[in-house]
Amino acid sequence: MRLTRYFLPVLKETPADAQIASHRLMLRAGMVKQQAAGIYSWLPLGWKVLKNIERIVHEEQQRAGHIPMLMPTVQPGELWQESGRDNSYGPEMLRITDRQGRKMLYGPTNEEMITDIFRSHVSSYKELPLTLYHIQWKFRDEIRPRFGVMRGREFYMKDGYNFDLTKDDALHAYNRHLVSYLRTYERMGLQAIPMRADGGPIGGDYTHEFLVLAETGESEVFYDSAVTDLTFGDREIDYDDVAQCQSILDEFTTRYARTDETHDEALFGQVPEERRRSARGIEVGQIFYFGTKYSEPMGAHVQGPDGKPVPVHMGSHGIGVSRLVGAIIEASHDENGIIWPEGVTPFHCGIVNLKQGDAEADGACEGLYDGLTALGLEPLYDDRDERAGAKFATMDLIGLPWRITVGPRGLKNGVVELTSRRTGESEELPPEAALEKVAGIYAGR
Amino acid sequence: MRLTRYFLPVLKETPADAQIASHRLMLRAGMVKQQAAGIYSWLPLGWKVLKNIERIVHEEQQRAGHIPMLMPTVQPGELWQESGRDNSYGPEMLRITDRQGRKMLYGPTNEEMITDIFRSHVSSYKELPLTLYHIQWKFRDEIRPRFGVMRGREFYMKDGYNFDLTKDDALHAYNRHLVSYLRTYERMGLQAIPMRADGGPIGGDYTHEFLVLAETGESEVFYDSAVTDLTFGDREIDYDDVAQCQSILDEFTTRYARTDETHDEALFGQVPEERRRSARGIEVGQIFYFGTKYSEPMGAHVQGPDGKPVPVHMGSHGIGVSRLVGAIIEASHDENGIIWPEGVTPFHCGIVNLKQGDAEADGACEGLYDGLTALGLEPLYDDRDERAGAKFATMDLIGLPWRITVGPRGLKNGVVELTSRRTGESEELPPEAALEKVAGIYAGR
Repeated sequence: MRLTRYFLPVLKETPADAQIASHRLMLRAGMVKQQAAGIYSWLPLGWKVLKNIERIVHEEQQRAGHIPMLMPTVQPGELWQESGRDNSYGPEMLRITDRQGRKMLYGPTNEEMITDIFRSHVSSYKELPLTLYHIQWKFRDEIRPRFGVMRGREFYMKDGYNFDLTKDDALHAYNRHLVSYLRTYERMGLQAIPMRADGGPIGGDYTHEFLVLAETGESEVFYDSAVTDLTFGDREIDYDDVAQCQSILDEFTTRYARTDETHDEALFGQVPEERRRSARGIEVGQIFYFGTKYSEPMGAHVQGPDGKPVPVHMGSHGIGVSRLVGAIIEASHDENGIIWPEGVTPFHCGIVNLKQGDAEADGACEGLYDGLTALGLEPLYDDRDERAGAKFATMDLIGLPWRITVGPRGLKNGVVELTSRRTGESEELPPEAALEKVAGIYAGR
Repeated sequence: MRLTRYFLPVLKETPADAQIASHRLMLRAGMVKQQAAGIYSWLPLGWKVLKNIERIVHEEQQRAGHIPMLMPTVQPGELWQESGRDNSYGPEMLRITDRQGRKMLYGPTNEEMITDIFRSHVSSYKELPLTLYHIQWKFRDEIRPRFGVMRGREFYMKDGYNFDLTKDDALHAYNRHLVSYLRTYERMGLQAIPMRADGGPIGGDYTHEFLVLAETGESEVFYDSAVTDLTFGDREIDYDDVAQCQSILDEFTTRYARTDETHDEALFGQVPEERRRSARGIEVGQIFYFGTKYSEPMGAHVQGPDGKPVPVHMGSHGIGVSRLVGAIIEASHDENGIIWPEGVTPFHCGIVNLKQGDAEADGACEGLYDGLTALGLEPLYDDRDERAGAKFATMDLIGLPWRITVGPRGLKNGVVELTSRRTGESEELPPEAALEKVAGIYAGR
């Protein structure tokens, strides 16, 4: 993309009402625009990051054998009467009355609807196990929306639901989700620690929240510092392998790591003192096993191997897709702007032309642009007639991890400059070598 | 995908309340489930088609230089008071009151919001031309939703908006959209004819609707049969080329083609009698130029070359993404089920194993499965322990354009059978040759 043909409305001033770094930087970098309290438009740059996160979530869910579908945003109220949550969900539910006077709502979550789909179509244990998921807009009418997309009212979420014949099968589904989530967050450049949590309005005996450590997190967390040494890496996973999934869950959840809701001082005291940490965390996902909580009242039964109907064991599993955009920025920025991890960056590489209009500089930039494109990468070429300082400031603000700077002086020596946004380190090298290096960085992503 | 691991709840009975073929077939093929009047869940097979259509729309919009973004589904009521449409839009607007008592609505379209974004961020003619678009769920509270996803209440739509300094520039944007739409529909295997139409609640002096001819269409249309001979083909387009876009618009819109809203008997009478046609059509898109209808009342001005503020010239351009799923089926089915065009099919090729459990047949099917996957194609392998007849019926119903049938008898002679869903013609050939043929069919898509 050429910047003169793009829509990147960066702001010079820091917005007064934005309290945290991600909110400030998303507004300044022209990623979002607030349309009402807690409701945002995703401007082109923000949309690209949102889509990259969505794509990674889709890929990892499908790798784990989970099946994508899509439920609507508006739901009939009756379903929530069946489960009993119509009363219990409270004022965060956005209730809607349609022109026929029917009671509807904007879905904050989908346990009821997916259970309705299941009971309408599945009747035998032979069709299990089954995990369906979707990525859809949700609404929770927060009384005090704040922190930008981190705590918005309209938000984008992946929510998945497993249906299993037995509790053991459902716990394997739980473990499978934990494993796939670890992989998902790592691909986004995030360390998200699974922590024992509380079921809240979803319910459930087993539940883990995934938290990204950040000073601006809304949750207080307590953990054994050894958990932050764990990395998922590129291990080969067979998601049907019960023992393998269990052993990864054990590896990542045995050490103490809890949110304040489930924190236990006595247990925490058993962690060696030098490894005891308390910090703040941003919740970016949660998994639940809740057994027959919805299947029993809603009649989601299958015929078991003995011919008798049994309610299915279920769990639900969420990843906050829009919230992750903010969480990644909280975890990765500096005083000049955002620093995107390669896995989610909106453009793979920036190109800065120091002398727009100079035939040689323009030609070299076009060559790099075509070269990156031919490699299957998306460059953002700042082809504006602007001072170098303004171009660098924009690139630093929007946070592309790599930048190639092209100027007449370097070209005279046959070189351009490749700069890492994260380290600030630059290297002079011939244009072809710069292309090769960038290609290598993104190989396999 | 292996069918035993998928969720494909096909129905044996024809649903009683579905009046048209696409609605019946989408329910029978397990593509959608109705959740409330005019509100559907997209089950896995339906979701895949919806996503394919969405992908083609994105690719063609970006090819034309239009910039993707995303606006929220819920909008503040104030914006619609500014434009004056808050009163005029009528009861199809789904109005919502949030917990703070603020008036909100579920967006049926986005002229107001995009104009608000534009006026907040763009101040100079130098930033024009600009076309922004998004693909987002919309809601129109139809009094009588029917025909399945063809006339639902919650529906998925691409809507794009151009901002230009002059009427001439905006008309080029109009032409560019017309050209890109022709290409878009052809990639989906559809002939959609641009017809002079009426502005309706969007407004506008220039507007064309794109109609797919089908007996079940809601609109009566009148046209010169010569328009159905036109095809877009794979011509090279330079979307910045004003003359080229104009000439394609002329080519496709000069001959008589109008909906009943703008039909003119006298003009129609000038078409040679043997070429006069009246038929029914399904509207799958519409483009508008409406000048300063929104920019003036909402203050979307830019500073012109002479330093004076001028309201921008705008148009909006919609493609009914969810509706297209139904429209494609209306245009392409037979008594046994759906016939997907290759461009949108949910799986590229079916594999039917005539003798599940037979080591040789199973092995050949696995080989084809891996071979198709290695080609970058998605097979659907019917690995159920079912009669051949049931497997064929399912494949015919869900409409994959190509099917490979594998049985012990053929394997003895070293062949499998490749069958076209459209023609019903079969061909026996070695497995490797079948793979090669399927690869050739999808090459370049």
